[in-house]
Amino acid sequence: MSLLDKIESPQDLRQLDKAQMILLADEIRELLINSVSACGGHLASNLGVVELTLALHYVFDTNTDRVIWDVGHQSYVHKILTGRRQQMSTLRQLGGLSGFPKTEESNHDAFNTGHSSTSISAALGMALARDLMKQKYSVVAVIGDGALTGGMAFEALNHAGHQGCDLTVLLNDNEMSISKNVGALSGYLNRLRTDPSYSRTKEEIESRLNRIPAIGPNIARAAGRMKDMVKHLVVPGILFEELGFTYIGPVNGHNLDELYLMLNNAKQMKGPVLIHVITQKGRGYEPASLEPDLFHGIGPFNVETGHPLKKSLLTYTEIFGKYMLERAKTDPSMVAITAAMTSGTGLTAFASCYPQRFFDVGICEQHAVTLAAGMARSGLRPVVAIYSTFLQRAYDQIIHDVALQNLPVIFAIDRAGLVGEDGPTHHGVFDLAYLRSIPNLTVMAPSDKEELIKMLDLAFTMEGPVAIRYPRGVAESHAAEADATVVPGKARLICEGRDLTIMAIGRAVNIARDVVAKLNQAGIAAALLDARFAKPVDSASILQRAQSGAPLVTMEENSLKGGFGSAVTEVLAESGVASGCMQLGIPDEFIGHGKTELLFEYLNLDADAIVEGIIKRWPQLLKKGHEVELLKIVKG
Amino acid sequence: MSLLDKIESPQDLRQLDKAQMILLADEIRELLINSVSACGGHLASNLGVVELTLALHYVFDTNTDRVIWDVGHQSYVHKILTGRRQQMSTLRQLGGLSGFPKTEESNHDAFNTGHSSTSISAALGMALARDLMKQKYSVVAVIGDGALTGGMAFEALNHAGHQGCDLTVLLNDNEMSISKNVGALSGYLNRLRTDPSYSRTKEEIESRLNRIPAIGPNIARAAGRMKDMVKHLVVPGILFEELGFTYIGPVNGHNLDELYLMLNNAKQMKGPVLIHVITQKGRGYEPASLEPDLFHGIGPFNVETGHPLKKSLLTYTEIFGKYMLERAKTDPSMVAITAAMTSGTGLTAFASCYPQRFFDVGICEQHAVTLAAGMARSGLRPVVAIYSTFLQRAYDQIIHDVALQNLPVIFAIDRAGLVGEDGPTHHGVFDLAYLRSIPNLTVMAPSDKEELIKMLDLAFTMEGPVAIRYPRGVAESHAAEADATVVPGKARLICEGRDLTIMAIGRAVNIARDVVAKLNQAGIAAALLDARFAKPVDSASILQRAQSGAPLVTMEENSLKGGFGSAVTEVLAESGVASGCMQLGIPDEFIGHGKTELLFEYLNLDADAIVEGIIKRWPQLLKKGHEVELLKIVKG
Repeated sequence: MSLLDKIESPQDLRQLDKAQMILLADEIRELLINSVSACGGHLASNLGVVELTLALHYVFDTNTDRVIWDVGHQSYVHKILTGRRQQMSTLRQLGGLSGFPKTEESNHDAFNTGHSSTSISAALGMALARDLMKQKYSVVAVIGDGALTGGMAFEALNHAGHQGCDLTVLLNDNEMSISKNVGALSGYLNRLRTDPSYSRTKEEIESRLNRIPAIGPNIARAAGRMKDMVKHLVVPGILFEELGFTYIGPVNGHNLDELYLMLNNAKQMKGPVLIHVITQKGRGYEPASLEPDLFHGIGPFNVETGHPLKKSLLTYTEIFGKYMLERAKTDPSMVAITAAMTSGTGLTAFASCYPQRFFDVGICEQHAVTLAAGMARSGLRPVVAIYSTFLQRAYDQIIHDVALQNLPVIFAIDRAGLVGEDGPTHHGVFDLAYLRSIPNLTVMAPSDKEELIKMLDLAFTMEGPVAIRYPRGVAESHAAEADATVVPGKARLICEGRDLTIMAIGRAVNIARDVVAKLNQAGIAAALLDARFAKPVDSASILQRAQSGAPLVTMEENSLKGGFGSAVTEVLAESGVASGCMQLGIPDEFIGHGKTELLFEYLNLDADAIVEGIIKRWPQLLKKGHEVELLKIVKG
Repeated sequence: MSLLDKIESPQDLRQLDKAQMILLADEIRELLINSVSACGGHLASNLGVVELTLALHYVFDTNTDRVIWDVGHQSYVHKILTGRRQQMSTLRQLGGLSGFPKTEESNHDAFNTGHSSTSISAALGMALARDLMKQKYSVVAVIGDGALTGGMAFEALNHAGHQGCDLTVLLNDNEMSISKNVGALSGYLNRLRTDPSYSRTKEEIESRLNRIPAIGPNIARAAGRMKDMVKHLVVPGILFEELGFTYIGPVNGHNLDELYLMLNNAKQMKGPVLIHVITQKGRGYEPASLEPDLFHGIGPFNVETGHPLKKSLLTYTEIFGKYMLERAKTDPSMVAITAAMTSGTGLTAFASCYPQRFFDVGICEQHAVTLAAGMARSGLRPVVAIYSTFLQRAYDQIIHDVALQNLPVIFAIDRAGLVGEDGPTHHGVFDLAYLRSIPNLTVMAPSDKEELIKMLDLAFTMEGPVAIRYPRGVAESHAAEADATVVPGKARLICEGRDLTIMAIGRAVNIARDVVAKLNQAGIAAALLDARFAKPVDSASILQRAQSGAPLVTMEENSLKGGFGSAVTEVLAESGVASGCMQLGIPDEFIGHGKTELLFEYLNLDADAIVEGIIKRWPQLLKKGHEVELLKIVKG
């Protein structure tokens, strides 16, 4: 029987001695590697927090104490220790364990996370609630050094320092967020980490201060150097101390004794405390510690080699990356900006070929967008590559700093639509809605590889801001199709058909192709339009189709409320054309995690379900004698 | 002839001697007081930056150098000095000068602002563009201590420190943002300002360090105190220095010599520089310096007394404030959160009566919302009061931290709709669109005082998140109207009429009342529904009305793209009911500044224009013989 088998809840940890704890850490690492190699997921970050999580559960009791995992992809160890070990094999699968903390899964999960830099705000909210309600428990926010660069983390630190209530911020410093960390703060943490003159104990401070007198007069002549030396000597963590936190650190995040001691200290202390813990991403699995970027979020892989199990076809992300690399050769005014997602957005090669024209600003979407506005104002053509869900952070900056000044910023919005295993915090299903109400902005979505390239070409010729949203995963290709020029505000007719019109946008066009084929088999001739533009929508095509009298179906991978279909219904209602319209897309609920194909099925957005839905709404479409064909089609 | 008459452009400043500059400052203050007392606007902040602006224009040449005014309400002096003195009498009026920097107005305005904390990002973008394009000019961001608390300012500082390019951040520290400043950073700046041991010259540092040896051994015994002393002694501005900036300051912001010297120094220095300038809000006008909060943004007032010219009727803001104060007496779980807008959101009395349950987090909308989520998770019922336009900053947090966990946070969204003189950066015309695509969220808009109160009552009984949006200005009252119970998702019928149905939401209901009256005079019987809910919309009422065959009109003070009317058209199209729908609201453009009534007229959203539009679209509504009445009505 393994040690891990004995751990049904964190209380069981207290039965173990030190040697057992070290063995347990090994067992946990093995389980992590096996689970993630089978299901995919976040590996490097979880391997890095094994001891830290053990120590947290040893010192705090998460039945009552509240631990908030910032971003939350590093919560696997926590899940293993809090009664979910057996379910690790279901990780990130439909109906299985989420890859992020979920209050719905366990009372040990204090707060749902997924996006970066929220933990200190949530923790402070809890600490203030606790004090107002005169309750007693500890609140701990566990935040990475990358997440700490997000502005809202600073907002929260600043407020927490002001409020002064009991609160522990555990800074998990692994020297990188997802890709290599950037920003001056990162340099600061590095100095704290590596400079031997940064002492951390009172004794050391005293002993060093005692040495000052002897050398004081000489040093004073070189005030600059003295200043650096003295500040580093005397005041580790001064940046945090000035914000009202007591700084403890740096602490070795793989030494359980040290962790116990410091966490216990923090637990006893009054007011806000920041513990600076140094961990190593990917610790205990060489492929992950050598390439933590690759093992941040990964699909299933071979444990021996660390190589992915399947070589994937070219994704939208890669098409975008290649385009950028190619274009940079001839377009010196073009620059690329990303918010800590160099690899995720396909910009690794661009970054290495054009380091002067590449800007990774850290997990700072707000700054990324307004930085781009400043650059555009001064003559550059910035491309801001951010995932759909994270761009929500910069909604105000898109309106206020870019669109209001009609600045030519190009938004390359990756991971739009359902993203699969990362689930509700990461699905990009709101962008068409939140972008299309913004004046001056053009919003496009390609349905294949060729269209993405043509839309990027078009974007660079436009005078105002442009957003192009495309999904996670493999890009379809229809190289042979004629009439592929992308004309602003115009849809593209893919096939004609007089019984029904389907107008789809983005990846949904490919499902629509299947729908059209299946309808054809059932004797129903459907026209298919690739809308291409969510803003401006092609009103002329919409009205022309509606006036033909054939029923209209819209398809999109976005919230139905306010999305592309909504834009179509606005046009229909305004024109007064008497036409119903069936709107297919993401319903008004948060969608869980699981393989994208399964999620489509769950939502009745696979081709079969759509065909059924169409016939159900318009039974008159089904000509006599075709019922049997239909049955065959939708059943398989 | 006054000195000011001689200043046609900033170059003319260089002809003046020091005594003349001081006289000029007085003349500018007089002009500011006269302009703002007549037109309304931002007074205290502009009175505080007179010398600072003079010095900036003396040292930098804004024909080529770029100065970005954070928020921008303090740019009046800059406008006066850059050829717009004569237009100061048109300030904030329709067609007149904007109250914020506008590149459209002058090349001296480098970047449009309005919202807080954007300037360092934009300035860094410009500095990076300059370097890439091998150009030469200076870039200066002028940011207040309040705006510095906004997370994106920190994101930008962190990135600027990392990039290391030449850039000046002028921190205009007036010890308050709009209301009294909060946060640990504010305490830090205060220590820099007031603690005599914070020295700023190299000489002083040296002389103080020379004294250390003598007292070293004793002090070392009290390491804690020593630490504080030494850090304050040696390293002013260390927080900024650690982020990669050279810190200069504090500088007296009303002493021109000191300002010239420090700005010239900064201009010569390599890398990012932060100049810490101390100014006094409202300087030179006693009422404004005594109550700078009141004189932040103000309507026309009497110069002698400083009192507003008209006593306004009760506003939505005040109704909300009174409600909160009243409810707090019996509801101990309720707390209020604001982002530096205590007075603007009507919470001044609440803050003073319930200081333990009131949280002003600074200009940190993101943190405010996630803080509320943490509180709600731990048993409190937080009310987050933020202006519609500023809540855009927290869009992601509303989705990710509140709605996804279905937490009972109440959003009190003030200044929704057109706000008038503050113009495009401040109109709150997107919230219905950006909120209604968020699952789990209920979105309401009251049309009068009574409804606001009932909606707040309802919000406190609901189990998930609720948003209530209401406009700037006086609240209408219809105390006598029966059937005023607010039922979730149900519209209210105000009057019946078989020719036409108008469904309006929020303040637009009151314009709709006028429209109905005017239509009645023209013999057209219009039904009026107060929609109340933008989410969920009252589908049953919409369909029932559409099925009656009478034309449908929607009215709202929100973007038509994706707004309330869009929700209605979704329902119509989905049902297949053959009904056109006229959607009235804010068109797909950014709306300028000016009195709200004039903006409504410009948009053809006043009652007369709406009546005309309805008859134009459905001429059959006009029964024979009523043409003359109609003509009389719409012509007045």
